[in-house]
Amino acid sequence: MILYFITGNKHKFQEISAIIKSEAPWINLKMANNIPKTEIQDYSLENIALFAAKTICEKFDKNFILEDAGLFIRSLGGFPGPYSSYVYKTIGCDGILKLLDSVSDRTAEFKSVIVLYYQGILKIFVGLAKGKISIKKRGSLGFGFDPIFIPEGSEKTFAEMTLEEKNLKSHRGKSTRKLLEFLKNVKK
Amino acid sequence: MILYFITGNKHKFQEISAIIKSEAPWINLKMANNIPKTEIQDYSLENIALFAAKTICEKFDKNFILEDAGLFIRSLGGFPGPYSSYVYKTIGCDGILKLLDSVSDRTAEFKSVIVLYYQGILKIFVGLAKGKISIKKRGSLGFGFDPIFIPEGSEKTFAEMTLEEKNLKSHRGKSTRKLLEFLKNVKK
Repeated sequence: MILYFITGNKHKFQEISAIIKSEAPWINLKMANNIPKTEIQDYSLENIALFAAKTICEKFDKNFILEDAGLFIRSLGGFPGPYSSYVYKTIGCDGILKLLDSVSDRTAEFKSVIVLYYQGILKIFVGLAKGKISIKKRGSLGFGFDPIFIPEGSEKTFAEMTLEEKNLKSHRGKSTRKLLEFLKNVKK
Repeated sequence: MILYFITGNKHKFQEISAIIKSEAPWINLKMANNIPKTEIQDYSLENIALFAAKTICEKFDKNFILEDAGLFIRSLGGFPGPYSSYVYKTIGCDGILKLLDSVSDRTAEFKSVIVLYYQGILKIFVGLAKGKISIKKRGSLGFGFDPIFIPEGSEKTFAEMTLEEKNLKSHRGKSTRKLLEFLKNVKK
């Protein structure tokens, strides 16, 4: 089956694409980066992603997914949360490290929300990666806040992991595997 | 004339209301805080406010205004900008001061965008207050980032000013006066 991924983010596409290639090769994932989508301001990634999917499926009647993700830092009241992309582009990893300077609770969580539009129905898949914010930036792989996030059970940041290692532990890897589990079952 | 102000923010209502009472008492400004509005994610306050106004005027066919505002800090790439309200609620004034710790360029700008829906037409009014971020929080009046913003030509922060003083220098005072100028002319 052909499945469109509505995104302009090549990193996200590569990550999800790698899992599909190895675990569900019957899916042909295609990047669609020219479909306009409306992102609302909301505390909930689920609401943001669902709203965007609803506006897209009014015009684009093919099977598609879109994904929204955020980094939620406990001692900062969940900041940067749904605005992670904007915060990354303005104050970046250095800004986050500065905000956490001399803060002992560095607990954080990455969350990925995938919305699937499949045969006229919208369905949502959520993946969480619990962990903490590192003291310094480390690594050059991945994207966004990867150099400062260490998932539970690891010593490495996401930016020190290969794409395959990151996909095993990441929020996006988890939401993608839930998506694939659903698609395998409806395919039967 | 009756003019509805679509907002849930009492501080904004008080500020705009005070100017109208003294400078355009023929306008009866009413707070409407139960009208749902859709706020999109965008770098431009104008786009955010216009989108919200369009979604409202589809259902609410009375003369109304809404207002969106943001604090744009130069050395932080414009952060927190359109997400000022979220950033205030999470990292607050203390977070901004921490981000600017040992930063020499403290230039900042408050921007207010009012959208008027009047007799079927949308019109936009922009007010700017240039200034800088203070070293410490000062004052207890106003709201939001007022305790850390010093407008040009003043020694006080917005939070050290009475409502009348703030209205003379503020972004919101300026956008409101542009709105009133327009309404006075169409009234003639």
